[in-house]
Amino acid sequence: MMDLPPIPAAAAVFTNGLLDRDFAKTCHGLLRGSARFRPLVVLDRKFAGRDAGEVMDGRPRGVPVYATLEEWLGEGNPNPSYFVVGVAFSGGRLPASCRPDILDALARGMTVVCGLHQLLGDDPELAAAARAGGGRLVDIRRPKPVAHLRFWTGSIYGIGAQVVGVLGTDCAVGKRTTCRFLWEACNQAGIRAEMIYTGQTGWMQGYPFGFIFDATLNDFVGGELEGAIVACDQATSPELILVEGQGALRNPSGPCGSEIMLSGNARHIVLQHAPGRSTFVDQEALGTRLPTVEQEMALIAAYGSRVVAVTLNGEGMDSSQLDAYHNDLQSRLDVPVVQPLRDGVARLVDVLRTEVLS
Amino acid sequence: MMDLPPIPAAAAVFTNGLLDRDFAKTCHGLLRGSARFRPLVVLDRKFAGRDAGEVMDGRPRGVPVYATLEEWLGEGNPNPSYFVVGVAFSGGRLPASCRPDILDALARGMTVVCGLHQLLGDDPELAAAARAGGGRLVDIRRPKPVAHLRFWTGSIYGIGAQVVGVLGTDCAVGKRTTCRFLWEACNQAGIRAEMIYTGQTGWMQGYPFGFIFDATLNDFVGGELEGAIVACDQATSPELILVEGQGALRNPSGPCGSEIMLSGNARHIVLQHAPGRSTFVDQEALGTRLPTVEQEMALIAAYGSRVVAVTLNGEGMDSSQLDAYHNDLQSRLDVPVVQPLRDGVARLVDVLRTEVLS
Repeated sequence: MMDLPPIPAAAAVFTNGLLDRDFAKTCHGLLRGSARFRPLVVLDRKFAGRDAGEVMDGRPRGVPVYATLEEWLGEGNPNPSYFVVGVAFSGGRLPASCRPDILDALARGMTVVCGLHQLLGDDPELAAAARAGGGRLVDIRRPKPVAHLRFWTGSIYGIGAQVVGVLGTDCAVGKRTTCRFLWEACNQAGIRAEMIYTGQTGWMQGYPFGFIFDATLNDFVGGELEGAIVACDQATSPELILVEGQGALRNPSGPCGSEIMLSGNARHIVLQHAPGRSTFVDQEALGTRLPTVEQEMALIAAYGSRVVAVTLNGEGMDSSQLDAYHNDLQSRLDVPVVQPLRDGVARLVDVLRTEVLS
Repeated sequence: MMDLPPIPAAAAVFTNGLLDRDFAKTCHGLLRGSARFRPLVVLDRKFAGRDAGEVMDGRPRGVPVYATLEEWLGEGNPNPSYFVVGVAFSGGRLPASCRPDILDALARGMTVVCGLHQLLGDDPELAAAARAGGGRLVDIRRPKPVAHLRFWTGSIYGIGAQVVGVLGTDCAVGKRTTCRFLWEACNQAGIRAEMIYTGQTGWMQGYPFGFIFDATLNDFVGGELEGAIVACDQATSPELILVEGQGALRNPSGPCGSEIMLSGNARHIVLQHAPGRSTFVDQEALGTRLPTVEQEMALIAAYGSRVVAVTLNGEGMDSSQLDAYHNDLQSRLDVPVVQPLRDGVARLVDVLRTEVLS
């Protein structure tokens, strides 16, 4: 990937009024832990004065929210070199309301890092501001040129590690967070595990191996995924490689995930589900219904892979509703069901050891 | 799509010794019928002096094969304005052996049309030759910029036509040809049918609606597909829209097809299969086995779509082997099985009328 900052680099993370929403998942990922960026401050006029972690999930993390860079710097705080756009806007485009803050950062000579599909470096006004102020624009999703892309070769079948995919029944359902929890828990338990990022937040968190799935030309998705896994295997010789899923197998807005099972040879799957949702995210008006866990497990089995655990996201349910669903689902399935945010994932480490590594 | 020639434009089609091979599928498509290009001559040193159709499938089509443009023009034949690269080279890149012929065409002021991933317009030597000779380079697979791409919206659910996908168990298995046969047969039988192209050959054949699946950024595949189908529905109000499949659902080099069922809302599928193949194309050394027809039908059913007919490609089998397989498969399935090249597809028109349109 392009333009790696010295790691970890101090950053201001901009969320434009969305810090408490799923749209701010890039910021949330940075607050939960990043080897690439260390958030000094979150910039969000709506939540100024609070702790960013407390706004996100009720747990303070010592990162303050300020309305603007000017206010943050006016109090004599350090000037971070990086300004990270921490929100994934609907449609992948930059709302006009964000421009003043980005122009301000560029005028101060900062490097603006953005994971939107809309490429800020191609925007004449922003590019001019970068030149004038000495700042830079880094577009994480800028597509790689074809000459730098790799076709699938089958080298995946020669690696030493076992590959596990963390898929989900929907977008924005917690796949990356569960994948990160599993990665941490495996390493704490003495399993040499690595994690492959597949989205812009994973890149921002500083994982060394991965690619940005949705900004890759379709013909090269399998090859880039294989290349990331094989490079990880060769460089680190892990026992286990966990692959962050993207999207969902049945999401009509852009089905994803079979590449991880087939091109990435993930024969074992951890499946993340949000039982409080009835339709795919942002498709409430269309009424496109989410599958049940059993339907998704059957689809995964039809591809020749096997779900070894189900993980639950409690969004939209209170804890008693979630627990009731959890108990009911567990009674129907012969694989473990856990709530990672409540239970952690230690139980799944044993499952991976028994079902995947033995 | 960019740079539409006046239709149909006279063209020389270049196959570089591969006219009899599957790699020449772009040329084969043009010989079978194109609204965009009319092949005057095929350029192929290996088959010079023969009829191109006869080399392709034993049926002469009145298009001669010459070794070079120089020989063709030296006999006083007309100078076509277009030079079409009629082969899909392995890896999507241009072999060095092709450069002299392309440079010659550019020196003569011709427009070179190419569907490879490697973009000829970005090649300094070829670009310089185009400038010097007054020729042009048109790269069909040049990715569209993000600003011209479309996300999926769900507008697919509001169209008037029924959508049928022509999927296959492998790449290069005859999906486009079967799709074209079905389109022709439906219209002959009085069904107003349209066809959506999804590959570079379909573009070259001049279908007005479609996009190039494999050269599209992954996040926009569903939206571009939906956009092509909706535009077709709005412009022509057909009863039936047939969508050419790409790749195969289980091909590890790049699984494809669920987008057609989900983003394109194709609830009915015609499934093309080559029983003479045991592994995916070009994966003989890896031994990645093709699914059986029944396994693929089960996977399609797991997505909520239904196979309404199976079509067979006899590659690698003699007619008695193919007929034996055909009879055996038909005895196990309750949907019709046909060999389009032997039987035509008239029987499938009745199936579409009964199962899809009624």
